[in-house]
Amino acid sequence: MVQIVNVGLDDRSYSIQIGPGSWDGLVPHLAASLPTGVIMVTDERVDSLYGETVHGMLVRGGVRVLRYVVPEGEPSKSFEKVEALCRTMAASDMDRGSLVLALGGGVVGDLAGFAASVYLRGVRFVQMPTTLLAMVDSSVGGKTGINIPEGKNLVGTFYQPEAVFAETPCLSTLETRDWDSGLAEVVKIAIALDEELFRYMESVDDLSPGGGLDVARIVAAACARKAEVVELDERETGLRRVLNFGHTLAHVIEASLGFGVMRHGEAVLLGMGAALRLSVDLCSLPEEQYARASALLRRIPTPEVTIPDEAALYLSRDKKSVGSSVHAVLVSGIGQHRIVPLEDPAALLRALKEWKKDWQEEK
Amino acid sequence: MVQIVNVGLDDRSYSIQIGPGSWDGLVPHLAASLPTGVIMVTDERVDSLYGETVHGMLVRGGVRVLRYVVPEGEPSKSFEKVEALCRTMAASDMDRGSLVLALGGGVVGDLAGFAASVYLRGVRFVQMPTTLLAMVDSSVGGKTGINIPEGKNLVGTFYQPEAVFAETPCLSTLETRDWDSGLAEVVKIAIALDEELFRYMESVDDLSPGGGLDVARIVAAACARKAEVVELDERETGLRRVLNFGHTLAHVIEASLGFGVMRHGEAVLLGMGAALRLSVDLCSLPEEQYARASALLRRIPTPEVTIPDEAALYLSRDKKSVGSSVHAVLVSGIGQHRIVPLEDPAALLRALKEWKKDWQEEK
Repeated sequence: MVQIVNVGLDDRSYSIQIGPGSWDGLVPHLAASLPTGVIMVTDERVDSLYGETVHGMLVRGGVRVLRYVVPEGEPSKSFEKVEALCRTMAASDMDRGSLVLALGGGVVGDLAGFAASVYLRGVRFVQMPTTLLAMVDSSVGGKTGINIPEGKNLVGTFYQPEAVFAETPCLSTLETRDWDSGLAEVVKIAIALDEELFRYMESVDDLSPGGGLDVARIVAAACARKAEVVELDERETGLRRVLNFGHTLAHVIEASLGFGVMRHGEAVLLGMGAALRLSVDLCSLPEEQYARASALLRRIPTPEVTIPDEAALYLSRDKKSVGSSVHAVLVSGIGQHRIVPLEDPAALLRALKEWKKDWQEEK
Repeated sequence: MVQIVNVGLDDRSYSIQIGPGSWDGLVPHLAASLPTGVIMVTDERVDSLYGETVHGMLVRGGVRVLRYVVPEGEPSKSFEKVEALCRTMAASDMDRGSLVLALGGGVVGDLAGFAASVYLRGVRFVQMPTTLLAMVDSSVGGKTGINIPEGKNLVGTFYQPEAVFAETPCLSTLETRDWDSGLAEVVKIAIALDEELFRYMESVDDLSPGGGLDVARIVAAACARKAEVVELDERETGLRRVLNFGHTLAHVIEASLGFGVMRHGEAVLLGMGAALRLSVDLCSLPEEQYARASALLRRIPTPEVTIPDEAALYLSRDKKSVGSSVHAVLVSGIGQHRIVPLEDPAALLRALKEWKKDWQEEK
């Protein structure tokens, strides 16, 4: 059964179709207003798995399709790739009635979405996320972005897709680490915004793919919560910062280790651990809830890493900082977030150590 | 006296201050909500003329200023330059509270505006246009853009500045061809949208700089008319196409001659001539009004050029085309535009030849 989550943003509203069979909705969606051309952007891995299928659907749907395959991984989120993509579209006479289709994970979605938002000052955009992270994170909120050597996602736009099709059976081809990384984002939503989702995840014995989790259920819940936040704060001027739960420190960890060493979700997991520890001190998070939330985090494997001491330096440069103060998203209870200015951002690094120590002691 | 034109676009509304002394409004504007840093983007020529003055104003206004100078001319509207600009901002810790200030003509405004719209997914943006074209064209409408080898302005965003300061005395340092190019855009507004402005320009004997034109008056009138159009159609889905009067052919002329051979405004002048000629045939523009409008156009010098025959090919690729048909903006009377689909786009090229012939015969 396909579940639908609506994202209500005035004339930029759209629906996310979630579950087995959701891709069947693509061609009828396009038929309602046929694009003059479609550029299907994907990466090498996803192309080998689903490229033919989706390309075939589009061709049978009667649209002119261009297939555009980029290498896997973060380096594809570059100015160079955006330019190459825009040039290909121009050389293929893609006009204002054309559509960019992102088939893949976060990298493909961020790159394709950015190109869609700037080519001819904006053309149509549809997402077909193939990773758990992309389904719960990139498909709501309209953030697009590319990297520059100075930092990740420092360049981008807010640009909403006109539709999202999240075919959950695709997730069976995910690597374990990518699954876990996506799961971390679902847990983020659960701890910061959705106690019910938290309880459900807590109740499932095996969180691995095929372990009994109702995937469409958690994707739909995470998308719905994120949609509620984004509807109130499309451009991240306030409330939307709740979605950065675990992220302030995660960015620092990723930057100080070098991007790519940890998956984003893995870094977010550590960031949430630190935020939970700090929440006990600064937001009166009850110890019992701290223990339950920590326990859920620990059921998702993360690689052992040592955070370099220079990490503290990155905290002051984090793009989520406003002026000179860093804000951390903390919780006063499961599902109840608080945004707290941190006088000493290094407190986050200390809290991470304490959280890890708590873990060792428990073992 | 500083004249003010308001551009009403909901939460993206802003004012344009026009006339001698308008730059004095910059520091008070910033003081109302001090940016965490300002990057002043300008080109070599404008920097040598006004860089010190504006930099000094900002420093005395108490803001941290970074001066960023690009080479003069279209090649600065490139992906490469946008990336370099964003990297400089990141390396200088420009955060979401920072502001991009465009000091210069259309190239600087388009580049700086695009960078402002994508750096950290959008930071503050203020324009200080120093050419007539930038004052009347780029300062209203929020179009930003860069070029790719496949065409001009094929990549960009719609991004409104928070304020515009048009210091008309700057125009005394313009080269004659740049003045004339700007004047062509004012005449465009007059013929397509503002009969009163047309009559005023018709009434002034000498249209050269310092020749008696009330510059602030024509800038304010052109901005006001353009604002009215943009307020109704921010993203160019319909009405806004009226602003393309003369532009369909102008783009073709520029592309077929190679960009830079003619000024944009000069090409627009020829485009308007062709559109007027076609308007007699297709929109019943009275011969008398055709003659008056043509006479005004002819008072603005344009270089003699021969349009290559391949120009017709470019018509089908023009980015203003929708699907396969080209729309031309024509007039049924001075100030009264009509948007007409052209079955045979080459009719525009033929009309240009006829317009030139009419001119020869008159001489």
